[in-house]
Amino acid sequence: MPKGTISILGLGAMGSAIAARLRDTGYTTTVWNRTTAKTAPHAAAGSTAAATITEAVQASDIIVAVLLDHASIHANLEPAAADLKGKVLVNLTTTTPNEAKTTATWAAEHGITYLDGAIMAIPEMIGGPAARLLYSGDENAYAIARPALETLGTAEYEGTDPGRASLKDMALLTAMYSMFNGYFQAAAMMRTVGVSAEATAQEVIAYNGALLPHIAHYAALIEHRDYSAGQSVDFTRTAVGSLITAAREQGVSADALEPLARRLDELTATGRSTADWISVIEQLTIK
Amino acid sequence: MPKGTISILGLGAMGSAIAARLRDTGYTTTVWNRTTAKTAPHAAAGSTAAATITEAVQASDIIVAVLLDHASIHANLEPAAADLKGKVLVNLTTTTPNEAKTTATWAAEHGITYLDGAIMAIPEMIGGPAARLLYSGDENAYAIARPALETLGTAEYEGTDPGRASLKDMALLTAMYSMFNGYFQAAAMMRTVGVSAEATAQEVIAYNGALLPHIAHYAALIEHRDYSAGQSVDFTRTAVGSLITAAREQGVSADALEPLARRLDELTATGRSTADWISVIEQLTIK
Ligand SMILES: NC(=O)c1ccc[n+]([C@@H]2O[C@H](COP(=O)([O-])OP(=O)(O)OC[C@H]3O[C@@H](n4cnc5c(N)ncnc54)[C@H](OP(=O)(O)O)[C@@H]3O)[C@@H](O)[C@H]2O)c1
Ligand SMILES: NC(=O)c1ccc[n+]([C@@H]2O[C@H](COP(=O)([O-])OP(=O)(O)OC[C@H]3O[C@@H](n4cnc5c(N)ncnc54)[C@H](OP(=O)(O)O)[C@@H]3O)[C@@H](O)[C@H]2O)c1
Repeated sequence: MPKGTISILGLGAMGSAIAARLRDTGYTTTVWNRTTAKTAPHAAAGSTAAATITEAVQASDIIVAVLLDHASIHANLEPAAADLKGKVLVNLTTTTPNEAKTTATWAAEHGITYLDGAIMAIPEMIGGPAARLLYSGDENAYAIARPALETLGTAEYEGTDPGRASLKDMALLTAMYSMFNGYFQAAAMMRTVGVSAEATAQEVIAYNGALLPHIAHYAALIEHRDYSAGQSVDFTRTAVGSLITAAREQGVSADALEPLARRLDELTATGRSTADWISVIEQLTIK
Repeated sequence: MPKGTISILGLGAMGSAIAARLRDTGYTTTVWNRTTAKTAPHAAAGSTAAATITEAVQASDIIVAVLLDHASIHANLEPAAADLKGKVLVNLTTTTPNEAKTTATWAAEHGITYLDGAIMAIPEMIGGPAARLLYSGDENAYAIARPALETLGTAEYEGTDPGRASLKDMALLTAMYSMFNGYFQAAAMMRTVGVSAEATAQEVIAYNGALLPHIAHYAALIEHRDYSAGQSVDFTRTAVGSLITAAREQGVSADALEPLARRLDELTATGRSTADWISVIEQLTIK
């Protein structure tokens, strides 16, 4: 028994995985892609291939867009605004929070019920519980699309601010890339003395794994702006300085640590050398 | 029954913890500190307080130095070189690998059996198994000092290169600070929309915790310089660009991610935009 009608705009790696999953779970799917050839395997598997965006939009109640970026969303959806009126538009394309808000405003102006989404998964994970998809924006849009969205992975509604899902996604990705980059830095240093990237990986997994929960302790102090104890700015500045020097001595660039060193210097310059080093977080706000 | 004689030079937070632990586990300890007052509690607890470095060095077979940095080590130990001759010197002061090598060369010139150490713990952890202490340098020095060093925490001998313990310590600390800094960045972003540092900490702990083991997979590819598949340089550059933009939109500085963006640009500029993004590690080597 068909569950409802959904059109998927964009059949890249991610859009294809999403279209396949919705089709496989019983939705009546229509697909569109700029390069038409990519619709063929989906048509063969039971989806309707739409020749134009308009056709795709008219075919369903829920429209899921998975294009490249904010620019491609607007280039393709603006001409179809009249057809989107009254429909639920779920935009899973990666955009910044401000871009999500811009699209939400545009949608509201055209009577489109807009939900923004952020996919915290790779295409292979779509359909499994490990795929986390964050949503924010119109509550009604979420209520309507929710059963379908829950087939894609773990769905989390982050509130009515359309930029919120994207912001959370980006905050977590920032933490992730910082962690991975720290490993690259460590592995590059150890490689200079013949230690394999694998051996360093095991060390970093054990060490960072043991220290990661400590973030919760920092968080409680940050929450109360309690920077009176803990490892000092001074001590940490010396340590970070040694790390930068040690990397350079091994012929490895250490520029990823320089912003941290600079912020610790700012704290020292403003008389806070004995404060807890985690107060560097306050220096991240652009004045 | 006394186990042997050890002198501890430096009674800062770390030196004090080490002196106390060695004393408590049955070693005959002599302590020295630049600021003499700090020896009093140790004398009261059963250590011998030495008035001069020379006196401290002459009192024991094993000398453990825990001063501030490389400069303070040389300023204080060079005048005592003749007294150190034939003794085991364990230097637990944080130094870079090159500084450790410099001290090892100096020690060899003066007939001192030298072991360099790196303490991966805070003073409160000394004496427990979670305190990890890395050692490298003279094998004989390690064999002699080992029973005493094993009372301080988990002792790991990293080989005869005196710089090795320090290098490993610094590589792991680089990974650690990168991870913590990534959390600060994420928390600063989320704080702008009223999400607590604690809530972001729980998210980062869960997300980074789940992704940390993935480093082992990267390591295997790095080891074989196999950058033919995986998430592309191009894709990652777009993602990192969005993260930088998103942070700035929230009024948060994103400079810690800029070196990564720059390296991805370098790869693109040299025709490697479709390579696995983890190939950025090759760009860390200073040409
Ligand atoms: N792949 C992942 O692991 C992943 C994870 C999380 C989020 N995402 C996000 O999901 C979105 C899609 O990613 P993907 O992996 O599917 O990318 P992809 O494989 O590169 O596919 C890009 C899709 O966008 C279309 N497109 C690009 N520019 C267009 C334009 N100007 N007009 C119309 N269509 C255009 C492409 O159409 P053509 O076929 O005609 O080129 C294709 O359908 C991105 O925003 C990405 O950040 C992906
Ligand atoms: N604390 C930690 O969590 C930790 C962790 C790992 C490694 N370490 C390393 O352990 C070493 C000691 O750290 P700490 O925490 O004990 O530091 P600390 O509490 O600041 O103590 C510094 C010690 O160095 C002495 N000192 C400084 N400059 C000197 C000089 N020019 N001549 C003679 N003595 C001098 C101080 O003597 P005065 O009392 O006279 O000032 C004091 O005994 C450092 O290299 C540090 O990086 C510490």
